[in-house]
Amino acid sequence: MEIICVGNELLIGKTLNTNAHWMAKRATSLGILVKRITIVGDDVDEISNATREALQRKPRFIITTGGLGPTFDDKTLEGIAKAINRKLEVDEKALEMVREKYEAYAKARKMEKVELTPPRVKMAKLPEGAEPLPNPVGTAPGVMINVEETLFIALPGVPSEMEAIFEKSVMPLLKKEAGEVTFFETSIHVNNVMESTLAPLIDQAMHNNPYVYIKSHPKGEEKKPHVEVHFSTTAKDFKTAKDCLKKAMVQLSDLIKKNGGKVRLKKKQ
Amino acid sequence: MEIICVGNELLIGKTLNTNAHWMAKRATSLGILVKRITIVGDDVDEISNATREALQRKPRFIITTGGLGPTFDDKTLEGIAKAINRKLEVDEKALEMVREKYEAYAKARKMEKVELTPPRVKMAKLPEGAEPLPNPVGTAPGVMINVEETLFIALPGVPSEMEAIFEKSVMPLLKKEAGEVTFFETSIHVNNVMESTLAPLIDQAMHNNPYVYIKSHPKGEEKKPHVEVHFSTTAKDFKTAKDCLKKAMVQLSDLIKKNGGKVRLKKKQ
Repeated sequence: MEIICVGNELLIGKTLNTNAHWMAKRATSLGILVKRITIVGDDVDEISNATREALQRKPRFIITTGGLGPTFDDKTLEGIAKAINRKLEVDEKALEMVREKYEAYAKARKMEKVELTPPRVKMAKLPEGAEPLPNPVGTAPGVMINVEETLFIALPGVPSEMEAIFEKSVMPLLKKEAGEVTFFETSIHVNNVMESTLAPLIDQAMHNNPYVYIKSHPKGEEKKPHVEVHFSTTAKDFKTAKDCLKKAMVQLSDLIKKNGGKVRLKKKQ
Repeated sequence: MEIICVGNELLIGKTLNTNAHWMAKRATSLGILVKRITIVGDDVDEISNATREALQRKPRFIITTGGLGPTFDDKTLEGIAKAINRKLEVDEKALEMVREKYEAYAKARKMEKVELTPPRVKMAKLPEGAEPLPNPVGTAPGVMINVEETLFIALPGVPSEMEAIFEKSVMPLLKKEAGEVTFFETSIHVNNVMESTLAPLIDQAMHNNPYVYIKSHPKGEEKKPHVEVHFSTTAKDFKTAKDCLKKAMVQLSDLIKKNGGKVRLKKKQ
């Protein structure tokens, strides 16, 4: 799976990219491997290039966030349409979703009617052959398009809307793809051993535990070393994963203690 | 400029990518445009591909974070070397930097000597022709390489180390490139008008103020609308920027008020 985040606010450091973090965590927990995250600005060519490049790598899923709203700089669908060489056209199902939202809005505010102006209709203009995904929280529908072996899903950038559509419409698709496999992780915290001393010990533990990925995250300095060591694996069930992680943790902890380190367990599972 | 972040922890949603956010904000404030951020895992081919693709877009700067440490999965320099077809070799200046760090460490802990084991020497193996950048906080030096018209800079993933090398060695280079130009921004907060109603008003204000970029960020829902409108521009001096932003802000605020909206100023400058 690849994630593409669209928005100038991410490139000028105005907004911290919590969307990519949330989605990567969620997809990983469902057993889906995220291979790349790309962030581009509100520019049709940038979006289209990032889309085309991702498609060439043939991931099973590409999920975009941002750029589905009513303003001139919401250009994600235009960029995708350009990349896959399809026209944008008003989708009747999407237009109905948008219309319902504005009718509910008019009712709530006791207004006569909220007109379907061009910026509002814009949210229902999808690439040919796309399917709208209902937005339980906001107005702009999500969008789903099959492009050869890739399922392309465009979600809004507002976190509550992105998450709501993800949980409702995307999660079941990812789960189906991943099958029974789930991601498990845990960490230990090591004091008194430098990361450079840990390096060969981790090598050894990974060699002995081929299904476990072990990565050190230095938190202190080499001078006053504190390192989080993170263990992860994917497995079909909790027991297999637990046994597998435990074995690696015990082996590495022993090696660390022999090298004068202190190990503190911290269960995250 | 492009940013490439390396680390599985970013792709599994373990770590929020504050490095990209911090660096994008810092570069933008210096008047440098960040065009793309790419995140890949600890894999030589992934790093090498992302590097090669970024180089093909010919940005003036590519800055990477992560993957410079002593462990087996610190693979950034190997990935870069592969992309630019250069060998990795022990750099004497870099080795001296690493040695000094471990000597200081041994002294601080009253140890005889900290041996320069292969994982420690690894941090001084740079692509041919590269320059090490001193790391004021940690052990692994930053790395700078000229590749045709691009200046390639690799920084560690530990935020305090990345930021320290950036401020000391990278910032002066970016400043020189940007010249006198600086980035300015401000926001207004709009209540009572839907983003879809704002859309044509923003179009009009941007048309009248070609040097100002205006972007709406919906914070509430369409039903109970609250929208932050962000104004930004680059200019040679504060007064020009301020006048420019102010004119756009006043014009758009007037349009919003005519459409029944409430505008609250919030100075960020």
